[in-house]
Amino acid sequence: MRSDRNVQQMQEIIRQAAGRQEIDLCLKNARLVNVLSGEIHRANIGIHQGQFVGFGDYAARECLDLAGAYVCPGLIDAHVHIESTMLVPERFAGVVMPRGTTAVIADPHEIANVCGVAGIRYMLEAAARTPLRIFYMLPSCVPASPLETAGAQLTARDLAQFWDHPQVIGLAEVMDYPAVLAGQESVLDKIAAAGGRPVDGHAPGLQGRLLSAYIAAGIGSDHECSRPEEMREKLRCGMRVMLRQGSAARNLLDLLPAVNSHNSRRCIWATDDRNLLDIVAEGHVDQLIRLACQNGLDLITAVQMATINTAEWFGLKGLGAIAPGYAADFIIFEEIDHFCPREVYIGGQPVARAKKSLVEPVLADTAALRSRVILNLPEAELQRRLEVPDAGGPVPVIGVSPGQIITEKLHLELPVQDGLLAADPQQDVAKLAVLERHHGQNSLGVGFVRGLGLKRGAIAATVAHDAHNLIVAGMNDRDMLQCIFTLARAGGGLCAVAGGELLGLVELPVAGLMSDWPVDRFHQLLLNLHRSLSRLGLAGKQDPFMMLSFLALPVIPALRLTDRGLIDVREQKIIKLP
Amino acid sequence: MRSDRNVQQMQEIIRQAAGRQEIDLCLKNARLVNVLSGEIHRANIGIHQGQFVGFGDYAARECLDLAGAYVCPGLIDAHVHIESTMLVPERFAGVVMPRGTTAVIADPHEIANVCGVAGIRYMLEAAARTPLRIFYMLPSCVPASPLETAGAQLTARDLAQFWDHPQVIGLAEVMDYPAVLAGQESVLDKIAAAGGRPVDGHAPGLQGRLLSAYIAAGIGSDHECSRPEEMREKLRCGMRVMLRQGSAARNLLDLLPAVNSHNSRRCIWATDDRNLLDIVAEGHVDQLIRLACQNGLDLITAVQMATINTAEWFGLKGLGAIAPGYAADFIIFEEIDHFCPREVYIGGQPVARAKKSLVEPVLADTAALRSRVILNLPEAELQRRLEVPDAGGPVPVIGVSPGQIITEKLHLELPVQDGLLAADPQQDVAKLAVLERHHGQNSLGVGFVRGLGLKRGAIAATVAHDAHNLIVAGMNDRDMLQCIFTLARAGGGLCAVAGGELLGLVELPVAGLMSDWPVDRFHQLLLNLHRSLSRLGLAGKQDPFMMLSFLALPVIPALRLTDRGLIDVREQKIIKLP
Repeated sequence: MRSDRNVQQMQEIIRQAAGRQEIDLCLKNARLVNVLSGEIHRANIGIHQGQFVGFGDYAARECLDLAGAYVCPGLIDAHVHIESTMLVPERFAGVVMPRGTTAVIADPHEIANVCGVAGIRYMLEAAARTPLRIFYMLPSCVPASPLETAGAQLTARDLAQFWDHPQVIGLAEVMDYPAVLAGQESVLDKIAAAGGRPVDGHAPGLQGRLLSAYIAAGIGSDHECSRPEEMREKLRCGMRVMLRQGSAARNLLDLLPAVNSHNSRRCIWATDDRNLLDIVAEGHVDQLIRLACQNGLDLITAVQMATINTAEWFGLKGLGAIAPGYAADFIIFEEIDHFCPREVYIGGQPVARAKKSLVEPVLADTAALRSRVILNLPEAELQRRLEVPDAGGPVPVIGVSPGQIITEKLHLELPVQDGLLAADPQQDVAKLAVLERHHGQNSLGVGFVRGLGLKRGAIAATVAHDAHNLIVAGMNDRDMLQCIFTLARAGGGLCAVAGGELLGLVELPVAGLMSDWPVDRFHQLLLNLHRSLSRLGLAGKQDPFMMLSFLALPVIPALRLTDRGLIDVREQKIIKLP
Repeated sequence: MRSDRNVQQMQEIIRQAAGRQEIDLCLKNARLVNVLSGEIHRANIGIHQGQFVGFGDYAARECLDLAGAYVCPGLIDAHVHIESTMLVPERFAGVVMPRGTTAVIADPHEIANVCGVAGIRYMLEAAARTPLRIFYMLPSCVPASPLETAGAQLTARDLAQFWDHPQVIGLAEVMDYPAVLAGQESVLDKIAAAGGRPVDGHAPGLQGRLLSAYIAAGIGSDHECSRPEEMREKLRCGMRVMLRQGSAARNLLDLLPAVNSHNSRRCIWATDDRNLLDIVAEGHVDQLIRLACQNGLDLITAVQMATINTAEWFGLKGLGAIAPGYAADFIIFEEIDHFCPREVYIGGQPVARAKKSLVEPVLADTAALRSRVILNLPEAELQRRLEVPDAGGPVPVIGVSPGQIITEKLHLELPVQDGLLAADPQQDVAKLAVLERHHGQNSLGVGFVRGLGLKRGAIAATVAHDAHNLIVAGMNDRDMLQCIFTLARAGGGLCAVAGGELLGLVELPVAGLMSDWPVDRFHQLLLNLHRSLSRLGLAGKQDPFMMLSFLALPVIPALRLTDRGLIDVREQKIIKLP
C-alpha cells in the first residue's frame, strides 16, 4: 500500500507523523504487542486516514485512553475457504471480525467448482463490500479430479483475467501434487502464470526428493502437515508451514511441539475449513492463538504467526504490524493470559466491539448464482437408478471413522430385498448417492458407506467436495428421493428426512454452498437442523454433513463416490459396485 | 529468479529434483547451517544449473564428499560503498568472494558524485563482469549538500533510466533526513519513484515522532545506530536495522546486546565503508560473523543476519538460503567455532578456494572515467589562494578525534608568519584545503584542522566524501601544493609529500576513487604509502586518509571544509575563517 503514494500524500503523512498537524486518533497508554521488535511495550499510537503514523503524544480529534489495555495487529487467516462457513463473504466478515480477524487469504475453489469464473467474480465483488480485507488465491485445481463432473473447469487461460485484480495475490493450494511431480503442463501453466507471486501447496505426507521436486516447481507453503517430523522436513526444505486448525482437520496440537524460536518466523496459522458452529462456539484465528498459548507458546510468537509472518509470506507489505506506514488494523484486548478481542479496528475504523460486528453490509447481487440444482429426471426414473441389483457376494463399501478424512475400502455382505441390495442398520451401512447437479446431466453414482451412524431416514447436501454435486445418504430410497427433491426445490442446501417427514432444511441458495441470511438466524437454523438429527439416530460430536461432504472427494484415499460411480482413489479408476 | 521460468524449465527442475535425471553436483555428508529451519542438520544436497534442486541422494556428474564439513548460504553485504575499497567492482569481487561474500547491495554514490549517471552506468557494467552478485541501490543524495561542488547532481528524473535494470533493487540511504522531514519534493520524488522497492535509511540519532515521520515517508532500514536504545527504538518502529562494522564506524559490539531471538530476523550485517587494508587483515562479512560469535551470538543467527534476513529486506527471493529453488551460492567451512570459508560457490560454480579467488575478470572499460582532476590554476595563483591573512585573534579550527567521524568546532590562536596564519605542530594543527576538481572551477576552501597527528609535510587525496574534491592537509604550503599537482598529474589518488619529496603515491585513475590494478599489487602500494607516513610523524592506528576523507562531508556535525569554505554544519552555512 505504500508503493502507490504520491508526493503530496507523503508530505501529509510526514506532517502528521511529526506531530505538526492534528490527526484522527491517538491510542494513549497502550501496551503494544510489537510483532516487529518481539516485545510488549508501552506506547501512544497515532492513527490517521487508516494508517498508523507514529508513536508519541499526538494531538488528535479522538483520544482513546487504553489505561494499559493491550493492542496487537489484526489477525490474518492464511488459508480459508469462506464457503465452508456456508456464509457469503459479507456475512462471513461479520462473524470473524468480532473475533479479531481483519484479513483473510481465501481460496474460492468451492464456488469455482460450481460456477467457474462467475463464482470467482462474485467472491471478488462480495469482498469489496466489507471492511474485512479479503484477498484471494486463484484456485489451481478445478475440478479436483477428472473422475467427477464439476460445474466448471478452470485452465490457466480462464484464470488469466484475474491476475491483475488488486485482491488477487497468488495461486491457491496446488492439491494435485501427482500432476506437479509428473510435470503436467496444465498445472505448471498456472504456477508459471503466478509470475513469482506466492503459490500455496497442499502435499500431505510428501517427503524426500519428491517433496524437493514439488517445492522446486515453485510451491512455497503447505498446510497439510499432521506430524512434527513432516513439518520439520518441510521447513528445512524452505516451505512456510501453516498450522491448520479447521473443523474436520485439527493439526495444531500435534504440530505445536515443532515450533521454536528459530523457525517460528516461517510458521503461520490457518483455519482452512471451519464451519460456523465452531466459529461461534470456539472462535476463529483467535481460538488458535488461545489454544497455542494454553499449550505453551508465548503470546508474541502466537500473534506473529497470525500477523507479520503471514503478511511476509503473501507479500502484504503494509499489513501485519503496528508501526508507521502500516494499515491501522488492530485489536484491543485486556488479559495477556486470555487473548480475547474487545474491540477490533480495520483501517482505523471500529468494526467490532464486545463480540458484535458494527458493520451492516449491503450484499452483492447473487441472482446469477442461485438455484444451482438442475434436476431433469422424473421421480420414477431417479428411483429406478437408485436401485442396486444384487449380484451375490460381498460388495465394496466406503468405510469412515470419526475424526478421519481418509476412508477405508471395505467388502461387506449386504441384505437383499426384492433382488436389490439394501442399507443395513445392523452394520451401520447406509446407501450413498451422488447426483450431478450443475449441467442437468444428472449422472448418478450409487454406493454404500459404513460408519455414518445413521439409523433411519436420510440426509443430503449440495456441499460435497470439491465438485459439490448433490450427495445423499439414507437407510431407504424413499427418504433419499425426498431429500433430493427437497434440495432441488430449495436450489441447494442441507436437509434431513425420516419416514417421509422433512425434519430440517437449511437452504444454501448461493451456488448451493452459501446463505446470505443474517448470521444469527442462519446459525439458529443450522442448530435446529443438527438437533433434528437425533431423530435419525445420529448423536455424535462429529458433524455428519461435514463427513458426508468429504465422501465425494476423489483425491483422498481410499474409496469415494462421485456422480461417475465408486472411485478407487489409489488406482484412480471407477470400480463396479455389485 | 523463480518468477520468470517457463514450463519447460519447471519440468526439467522437477525431473532433477525428483532424482529422475543426472544432475551437476551433489554435496554428500554436509552439515547444513539451515537458515530457514534454524538448525544445523546433516544433508546431501543436489545442485543443477546454478540452483539447489533438493535434499537427498542424487546421481550427479560430480560428487563432493564433505565428510561432515559445514555448508551455509553465501554471505550478503547489505550496504557497501565499493568505492571505499578503492577497487573497481571486478577487483573488489576478487577480494570479498574468498571471504564468503557472494552478493552485495552497493550504493554507488561516491562515483555518482564524481561522474553522475555515467558513473552508475559504469558500475552496472563492471558488476556484470564478475560472478559476485552485485545489486545496486540508486543514490538518493547526490550531492550530499548544496554547500559543496560535486561532479554531478542526480534528480529523480536522472535516476529514472535505471529503475528497470535487473540489478537495481531500491533507493540507497536517504541521508538527507532534514529534507525528508521538511517534505522536500526533490527527495520525496526519489522515494516515490522507488515504487515500493526497498528504500534504505541513514538517520543517526533520529528518534520520537521525527523518526516515525522519516519511516512513514517510506524508509525501511537504518545502519547508523550507535547505541542499543537507538537500535531498539528503530526496531519497534519497524525498521530493519543494519549493524555496521566499517573501517571508520564500528558499531557491531555496541549494538550486539540488543540482538535477541525475538528481533534478530530484522537485524542485518553491513560493512558500509571498509577499506582494503581491513578486508585483507580482518575479513569482510565473515569477520562480522566471527566477531559476533566470539561475543556470544549463536552461529545460526549470525549467518541468518548475513543471508535470509538480508534477502528478505531486499526482496531477493531466490537468494540467502539453501533449499530447492534457491540459487546455489554457498560456503564450505570446517569449524563451527571458527567461521572461516574454505570454499565458496556462486551459482553452483566454485569462485574461491583457500582464500584465493578462482576468477580472472575481464575489466569493464574505464576510459571515460579517467583523469578526473581538472586543474586550471597556475601554481602562483593557487599558492596565493592557499594563504590565510591574519586578522588577529583566534580562528575557527576543525577538531578531530580518533575513532570519531563527528568533529568539533574549536577556536584557536594560530602562529603568524609574514602576516599569514600558519600550521602549528605544537598544537597538532595542520592547514587544510579542498579544491574543486570536477569542472575546472577550482574553487578552493581553506581552513585548519587539529588532531590529524601530522608533524611535517602534507597528505592529499581525491577521495573526500561525498563530493570527492581534492583534499589536502599539510604543515606548509609548498608541500601542499606539490600534493595537489601530483594528484592532478596522476588523475586522482592518495599521496604524501615531505620537504619537496614525494614519499608515496597511490594512483586512483578511475574517477579519482578507484584502481583497476590487481589486488595484491595495489594492496602492496597502499601498505607502502601507509608505511611512508611515519616520516610525516603519523603513527596512529587510525588511517589518516580515511580521517581526511570525512573532513569534507558537510552533513555530519560540527565543522567541515568544502571547496566553498568552512561549513558550520548545524547552522548549514559558510563561516568566515579569519
